[in-house]
Amino acid sequence: MEFTVNNLAAMLGGEVRGDGSVKINMLAKIQDAKKGQISFLSNPKYEQYIYTTQASAVIVNKDFVAKKNISTILILVDDPYSSFTALLEEYHKRISFQKTGIEQPSFIADDSIIGKDCYRGAFSYIGGNVKIGDNVKIFPHVYIGDNVSIGNNTILHSGVKIYAETKIGNHCVIHSGTVIGSDGFGFAPQGDGSYKTIPQLGSVIIEDHVAIGGNTVIDCATLFGDATIIRQGVKLDNLIQIAHNVEVGKNTVIAAQTGISGSTKVGENCIIAGQVGLAGHLVIANRTGLGAQSGVSKSIKEEGLKMMGSPAFEFGDYFKSYAIFKRLPDLQQRLRDLEVKIQKLQGRSMPVD
Amino acid sequence: MEFTVNNLAAMLGGEVRGDGSVKINMLAKIQDAKKGQISFLSNPKYEQYIYTTQASAVIVNKDFVAKKNISTILILVDDPYSSFTALLEEYHKRISFQKTGIEQPSFIADDSIIGKDCYRGAFSYIGGNVKIGDNVKIFPHVYIGDNVSIGNNTILHSGVKIYAETKIGNHCVIHSGTVIGSDGFGFAPQGDGSYKTIPQLGSVIIEDHVAIGGNTVIDCATLFGDATIIRQGVKLDNLIQIAHNVEVGKNTVIAAQTGISGSTKVGENCIIAGQVGLAGHLVIANRTGLGAQSGVSKSIKEEGLKMMGSPAFEFGDYFKSYAIFKRLPDLQQRLRDLEVKIQKLQGRSMPVD
Amino acid sequence: MEFTVNNLAAMLGGEVRGDGSVKINMLAKIQDAKKGQISFLSNPKYEQYIYTTQASAVIVNKDFVAKKNISTILILVDDPYSSFTALLEEYHKRISFQKTGIEQPSFIADDSIIGKDCYRGAFSYIGGNVKIGDNVKIFPHVYIGDNVSIGNNTILHSGVKIYAETKIGNHCVIHSGTVIGSDGFGFAPQGDGSYKTIPQLGSVIIEDHVAIGGNTVIDCATLFGDATIIRQGVKLDNLIQIAHNVEVGKNTVIAAQTGISGSTKVGENCIIAGQVGLAGHLVIANRTGLGAQSGVSKSIKEEGLKMMGSPAFEFGDYFKSYAIFKRLPDLQQRLRDLEVKIQKLQGRSMPVD
Repeated sequence: MEFTVNNLAAMLGGEVRGDGSVKINMLAKIQDAKKGQISFLSNPKYEQYIYTTQASAVIVNKDFVAKKNISTILILVDDPYSSFTALLEEYHKRISFQKTGIEQPSFIADDSIIGKDCYRGAFSYIGGNVKIGDNVKIFPHVYIGDNVSIGNNTILHSGVKIYAETKIGNHCVIHSGTVIGSDGFGFAPQGDGSYKTIPQLGSVIIEDHVAIGGNTVIDCATLFGDATIIRQGVKLDNLIQIAHNVEVGKNTVIAAQTGISGSTKVGENCIIAGQVGLAGHLVIANRTGLGAQSGVSKSIKEEGLKMMGSPAFEFGDYFKSYAIFKRLPDLQQRLRDLEVKIQKLQGRSMPVD
Repeated sequence: MEFTVNNLAAMLGGEVRGDGSVKINMLAKIQDAKKGQISFLSNPKYEQYIYTTQASAVIVNKDFVAKKNISTILILVDDPYSSFTALLEEYHKRISFQKTGIEQPSFIADDSIIGKDCYRGAFSYIGGNVKIGDNVKIFPHVYIGDNVSIGNNTILHSGVKIYAETKIGNHCVIHSGTVIGSDGFGFAPQGDGSYKTIPQLGSVIIEDHVAIGGNTVIDCATLFGDATIIRQGVKLDNLIQIAHNVEVGKNTVIAAQTGISGSTKVGENCIIAGQVGLAGHLVIANRTGLGAQSGVSKSIKEEGLKMMGSPAFEFGDYFKSYAIFKRLPDLQQRLRDLEVKIQKLQGRSMPVD
Repeated sequence: MEFTVNNLAAMLGGEVRGDGSVKINMLAKIQDAKKGQISFLSNPKYEQYIYTTQASAVIVNKDFVAKKNISTILILVDDPYSSFTALLEEYHKRISFQKTGIEQPSFIADDSIIGKDCYRGAFSYIGGNVKIGDNVKIFPHVYIGDNVSIGNNTILHSGVKIYAETKIGNHCVIHSGTVIGSDGFGFAPQGDGSYKTIPQLGSVIIEDHVAIGGNTVIDCATLFGDATIIRQGVKLDNLIQIAHNVEVGKNTVIAAQTGISGSTKVGENCIIAGQVGLAGHLVIANRTGLGAQSGVSKSIKEEGLKMMGSPAFEFGDYFKSYAIFKRLPDLQQRLRDLEVKIQKLQGRSMPVD
């Protein structure tokens, strides 16, 4: 990235105070910024830094009134934080998608098709009958099994493993070490105490705009024609377990180390915190919120509930109960005191039992 | 897979009603099946579909009596569900083991030995003095360290990492990203607050018919000659932690994200749910059941117990206690009411304390 | 390793009883040791084995007095356990660092620099502008992104993924499948229920003497110039989640499957057990101890506390409360009994309410 202050102000619809021809090559926080970098001032508690910053330019609110001399160039906008974020995104897009071409050695089966402007890193592997769209970035050590399809503008970071038959949409980002399409955990108990493997023959569908963190695992569905489905806009963090036949609804966000057991359907726009566990074959209503380390053992039918505990119940109620749990020794002592008092009262009147 | 209905009926010991020469190339659910596919009817609630299914053939109970016209071919058997599962297994075995040969580039040290009908994917790595049996499938990006031995008919999916000295049996399946033989977590505290690494020089033994999910980690034992041991028939799900010197007994099943701390011995035929934690140096009796998110801090000596909670205690008792936990605010209120009543009673008689 | 007993005794400052010219090539436990191996006797309960061991030599306390004939050679030292551990470490160092040279195919960008005595396994990938010190061991399938720097004597096991811009110090060990520098989990909710990705542009800094287990994930910081930091001497186990902008203080030890949410600062010399969860934006005081499966939702300001529960509170108090939790049905019954008794007492005097 190398722009002039004028370029950036034009992008942001902002007004320049100072020399608009100065060149900017990086973004930084106002207290850390150096020459050639642009920063922003939004929270008034950082105002002090605008008088001392080394940043070449700072994005400020158009109503900003300086109390001292300012040596940096200003770009005046309606919302400095949003403007800065927009620049960050633009920058990020450019660096994420900067890699193109094919590094060698890499492996691709003859009958697989790959779009334009793609990157295929060294030691990446693409099996047979794979279809990959445009502008897809396949980092080193990625494995893509047979019959996989991947849309446009998707990024697979180093070491992602995609089993055969998986479908991945457009604009997805999948981080290193994540495994998609491994066998569901299905074993039928036999008379002698051993288990027989139930073949897992379904697939995984990842829709558009899905982000998946590192070392997460998503198992394939059990039956032909069935799929474990991650709907559009879902965001999954690191080290998450998604079992066979699960469906995660549109725009649901799940934090790290959470696990969802087989065949559970999670609704849309849910927010699930870290280390949560969901039992199998549940239906979780839209907009459900689950607190960290919760365990959900029953379906949640009402939309918009916030739950906590293991098994989980209503969030506020959990904390009321937990507050008393912390004082249980005191509660027990009060009970003992009452027992003694009642015994004395009984002694003074006549036997009750 | 391409068989005639007659072929399949013969495999299943079933009787054909209709044209036995029709060709079948896939299995599917009765409501989804298409031409060329075979399905089954077991649960009466799906009976409606047998009259409309597009399946070329359906496996039904020999006592099945149709209430309407049926256009599909029938195979009559004793147990349609078992028969269908048997076909699934046969199909799965064929597709799992279809890959053979060596893709290039791949790496194998000169002194390693590999059996017949094996597959070695591109970018797979086999170190020195490795012994691999027949019909083993080594997918791309698998790493096998020095002195490893692997039995027959074992599948290592893409990106599995096997450290040096590990022993793996026959008929095992290990999914992508799983790590076997990493150093145990052993550090000796020093006077200055730092830690010194305790070398981890043991190995890992995986016996026959073990299945391991994706991104699981099994650490090696600490001392020479010792091993972390996963016994015959054990099934481990995804993202499981098995620490150094652990032993998991025959036919024990462990769900995702569970962790077992160092030197714990888990018995045979245990069923351990997801996100369970076991402390170190425990002995867990055979046939123990542990509910999701349980934490086990003491050995379990009696066989066949079901436990829950953290620390875990008897399953039913946990839920009784938890039911009251949820009503603790009510319990506390009842206690307060009693205190008030007693105070009034005391006021009306004479001082008790 | 091939030494004489005299060599080893000299290394340990010990005295030899027997033939010091005998050759030793391995270490083992006293009950398992074979010819050519050295063992130790420290715990008196193993004394029986010294009279029957096949070990060629045994390290014993200089005050040891044999009660029967001993056929093995003895090395007399002040502290047999420490001496044995010292030999283990020496052995471990030798085998860990035995690999050198470059296996092919491997990938390194032209402008990257690598020190002397390094190992680069087949299928390892080193991106552009990378700086790697001396005696670094890069196992097969390791990925090192652009602009990464790594100090001396660090080991990256097979399949470690290091994203661009990461800095790793000296004497670190990182186990297979671990991901360092993946995007932090940051998404801004939009009006339509979807989420916009907040670009993650910071990096990760791993200081010296850090050990990291297998399949752990450490996310990069959000802003330029910021870093997620793992301080000197930290030991992280397997399958740990470290979110963006976290800092883990010097010599802190964290067990498997624990997760630390974004921007939390963990102090020095903390001991955090397995499956613990820490919420975001917390500050955890030095020397904090957290019991297994704890959940920490508030900062801990006092140093040296031991905490347990979810949310966590003082360790001893947790177990007191939990002991009563287990007896809640009994407590409830006692409360009911009191209610009945009071009602009877009230009946015999006069109405209270």
